[in-house]
Amino acid sequence: MFTQVKNTKVYEQIIEQFKTMIAEGTLKKGDKLPSERDLVEQLGVSRAAIREALSALQIIGLVEARQGEGNFIKENFEESLVDPFLLIFMLNGSNKEQILELRRVIEIETVALAAMKITEEEITELEQCLTSLNESEDEASKVKWDKSFHYNIAKASKNILIINMMNAVSSLMDSFISDARGSILMISDNRSILMKQHEAILQGLKDHNPNIAAEAMRQHLDLIQEYIVK
Amino acid sequence: MFTQVKNTKVYEQIIEQFKTMIAEGTLKKGDKLPSERDLVEQLGVSRAAIREALSALQIIGLVEARQGEGNFIKENFEESLVDPFLLIFMLNGSNKEQILELRRVIEIETVALAAMKITEEEITELEQCLTSLNESEDEASKVKWDKSFHYNIAKASKNILIINMMNAVSSLMDSFISDARGSILMISDNRSILMKQHEAILQGLKDHNPNIAAEAMRQHLDLIQEYIVK
Repeated sequence: MFTQVKNTKVYEQIIEQFKTMIAEGTLKKGDKLPSERDLVEQLGVSRAAIREALSALQIIGLVEARQGEGNFIKENFEESLVDPFLLIFMLNGSNKEQILELRRVIEIETVALAAMKITEEEITELEQCLTSLNESEDEASKVKWDKSFHYNIAKASKNILIINMMNAVSSLMDSFISDARGSILMISDNRSILMKQHEAILQGLKDHNPNIAAEAMRQHLDLIQEYIVK
Repeated sequence: MFTQVKNTKVYEQIIEQFKTMIAEGTLKKGDKLPSERDLVEQLGVSRAAIREALSALQIIGLVEARQGEGNFIKENFEESLVDPFLLIFMLNGSNKEQILELRRVIEIETVALAAMKITEEEITELEQCLTSLNESEDEASKVKWDKSFHYNIAKASKNILIINMMNAVSSLMDSFISDARGSILMISDNRSILMKQHEAILQGLKDHNPNIAAEAMRQHLDLIQEYIVK
């Protein structure tokens, strides 16, 4: 007869109102929120509930408090996705094989997309990444340039959702790219093979050829897989 | 001389401790947390700060309060990723073209991965999706089965990170799959073309052939792109 009554807390209802206003476009990035006092009046709730909701919105990374200025919708909200992804990874005891699979899923089609959209400036930037990668002496710098190369390809896709997704998994990839290089470089011939693979990916991008770029990325990730997944 | 003092709130420090314990494996999915009173003692902070931290962890979706039982690390934490993705999408004013690109990035390589891992049971499930899709009379049911077909392929990848990523973008895809079908079905021949494309994807999966499955998915998404992106 009866259905279970859901115990919705006041701060949850406040957060829902914020989400609705974002969905409707009433609240945008960088917008200043009304003062705590105004929110108390407009929403007809206690100051404590407003503070609880604002704290929660700060933790989600949606709102930022600027000292003496008030509360604002955050400009770089996407950063907050990194943490949930890392936590899921840790809670699920995911392994290197799963990270590599995720990397294939994202990077192979992303490089194809980038090949269609990349600008001359972005190509120059990628060339500089590879020059620095090949010329730097220490392995730590090489890892840094290797990462830059891959992240800049994602940026060249110009798709905010894809770039955000890459950001979200970047912390996972970070430890992974350096581990992967370590295992692969135990075999000395592999250094020049890796270099050629990076150049092949760049060539596909320069030629604006999505198939060639994707195939080069696939071969690159195949080599990595060989050394990581047993 | 001096560096800026960072105003780290007490609840933020408490949350950091939780994250560390998860990273170290001290806290796992489903684990019961100490009582509020115990946390007050162990952390040497006020009860109000503990409550603020627990509220925040509930909002992030990491902790759930079970009435009369206490607080637990949530089992299905991954659900909480959906909201941040939707909010990013809304805050960035992303468009259909971007969703379709994201869909290509995820689905083309995921179907290739699924082809290598799919079980007989999962193939039977996909067959049932297509049978139901073809036999159902109303468009709402067809949309439902179309979605199931695509989501079940992601599940067949058996990769928790990829499945989570699909979950995270599922709300975006939801409205999109039904919109896409609507535009495409304005042309009557397209109904049988869509059906053949779904069957081609299924055939690639049945043959455990990643290249064929990925190519079939690519053609499927090409057709959709033609009608969605102008």
